[in-house]
Amino acid sequence: MSFDAAGGSTLRFRRVGIVGVGLIGGSFALALKTVKAVDTVVGFGRSRANLDTARKMGVIDQIATGWDDIEGCDLVLLAVPVGQLPEVMPVIAPRIGKDTVITDAGSTKRDVVLYARAALGNALPRFVPAHPIAGAEKSGAAAARPNLFVGRPVVITPIEETDPFAFKRVRATWQLTGAKTLRMDVAMHDMALAATSHLPHVLAFAMMNEIAHRPQAEAMLSLTGGGFRDFTRIAASNPEMWRDICLANRDSLCNEIDAFSARLAQLRHLIAMGDGPALEREFESARVARDALTATLNAGARPRD
Amino acid sequence: MSFDAAGGSTLRFRRVGIVGVGLIGGSFALALKTVKAVDTVVGFGRSRANLDTARKMGVIDQIATGWDDIEGCDLVLLAVPVGQLPEVMPVIAPRIGKDTVITDAGSTKRDVVLYARAALGNALPRFVPAHPIAGAEKSGAAAARPNLFVGRPVVITPIEETDPFAFKRVRATWQLTGAKTLRMDVAMHDMALAATSHLPHVLAFAMMNEIAHRPQAEAMLSLTGGGFRDFTRIAASNPEMWRDICLANRDSLCNEIDAFSARLAQLRHLIAMGDGPALEREFESARVARDALTATLNAGARPRD
Repeated sequence: MSFDAAGGSTLRFRRVGIVGVGLIGGSFALALKTVKAVDTVVGFGRSRANLDTARKMGVIDQIATGWDDIEGCDLVLLAVPVGQLPEVMPVIAPRIGKDTVITDAGSTKRDVVLYARAALGNALPRFVPAHPIAGAEKSGAAAARPNLFVGRPVVITPIEETDPFAFKRVRATWQLTGAKTLRMDVAMHDMALAATSHLPHVLAFAMMNEIAHRPQAEAMLSLTGGGFRDFTRIAASNPEMWRDICLANRDSLCNEIDAFSARLAQLRHLIAMGDGPALEREFESARVARDALTATLNAGARPRD
Repeated sequence: MSFDAAGGSTLRFRRVGIVGVGLIGGSFALALKTVKAVDTVVGFGRSRANLDTARKMGVIDQIATGWDDIEGCDLVLLAVPVGQLPEVMPVIAPRIGKDTVITDAGSTKRDVVLYARAALGNALPRFVPAHPIAGAEKSGAAAARPNLFVGRPVVITPIEETDPFAFKRVRATWQLTGAKTLRMDVAMHDMALAATSHLPHVLAFAMMNEIAHRPQAEAMLSLTGGGFRDFTRIAASNPEMWRDICLANRDSLCNEIDAFSARLAQLRHLIAMGDGPALEREFESARVARDALTATLNAGARPRD
């Protein structure tokens, strides 16, 4: 595993279509505009108010008048919630130009690939699934910023059918946003994200609920220190979005919950048995791994999302 | 449950003995000096270098020449690791003056009370167990600061034998450090801390180990976002200290692990069944609880530990 080297590029698009002009879609547009890789950005979306904001802020240049505006785009980014893709893909599929490349920003990939295989038809080889791992505390076009992806990982998960030229073109485009791209297969991506993102969210939700439902909740929460607060910060995440992510990635996520539960049961056993030396070894091993992660993050000077 | 009101006080000690001049013991001494509540602070400890540092920094005024120096103290703080109390308490017990009050700073209380009942004899009524919930990233006298406890909760857990006058005197002393004291019984304290502090640490240790032991660990960790990093920050905590805390509070902690595991299993069931509405209700309930915690913390403007 290693990040792809960013190649020098004279990549330029005439018209880029952004379907879903939120934090991710809007930041992608701004990043491409910043490096002058696009002449015109067209925004597609359900909220007229959001699209008006996007145009006023210069995130997009035009608001699409209908789905037919996909026809003139030579790059399309699908940045709607993954749950909307089964509706969106069949509508855009017949309107995609024969040289147009398509990418997405969904945080699960197996389901996106299933939808694409079902809906995209002849355009399927030019669809290159991607997942930018970048912050999502704020949403909407107003939160977009040109440097959102700088130094952030973007996982690209080409499938069997993917045209190598389309893959390279999409990869180079994500690199233009300042992202560090890395290629992974779909299953590995979904497993890795289940372990490092979806599982921690589920644990944080479970912990907040376990405490909040107790009669002594107020007293307990009055005692929380910085550890608890950091640990549960992600429990304030958007419930609808996380419902969709958990269901979309349910197989990998259930596997990760099981693996985690087994390891927790093992620690519980050591605690119940009073096995101090084994417990200390476990904690020491976790500390070493966490310190190594800190060192890697500091070395990469990756901005905090 | 409510925090105790801080009463105005003319509390003043002639000699305060700090047994264990680390972050907590040193900060306690500095806080009392700042409000001129003590004439002389005497430091007791095993590391001469640390005591020298403490004296040079003005954290303590004198280094004890032996345990007999306990005799002249009218307030004693036991701030050594809880595991050392079974050795320390029998040594100081016969040397405690008959009007002297004693408190501690241990993060578990049932075990401390057991040790105290076994060792303190006549001094037991004047021992008032306490637990300041304040940061512990750094340790040693050099890390001490006078404002460590300002706005932080200090749980005081008097027992049946505790003399009411000693309780009031110790509570007023902790309030002089700027802490918000609250009274709780021992079992409630240990349960609350197991849930809000010890369990999150165990979960963070388990998560780091689960990922670090996989062949794909490097690729997985390269994808981590801010959520994962916040979630696992506490996995870098001191393994020896956390081994001791987990074992000292093992009954409450195992109960909390079981309650948490049951709730996690319930979420797993909803995910596996694809029950979107129930899942969203769970996540929404967690979000509401976490947002309320944020609001409380912001309202209290409690400094981050």
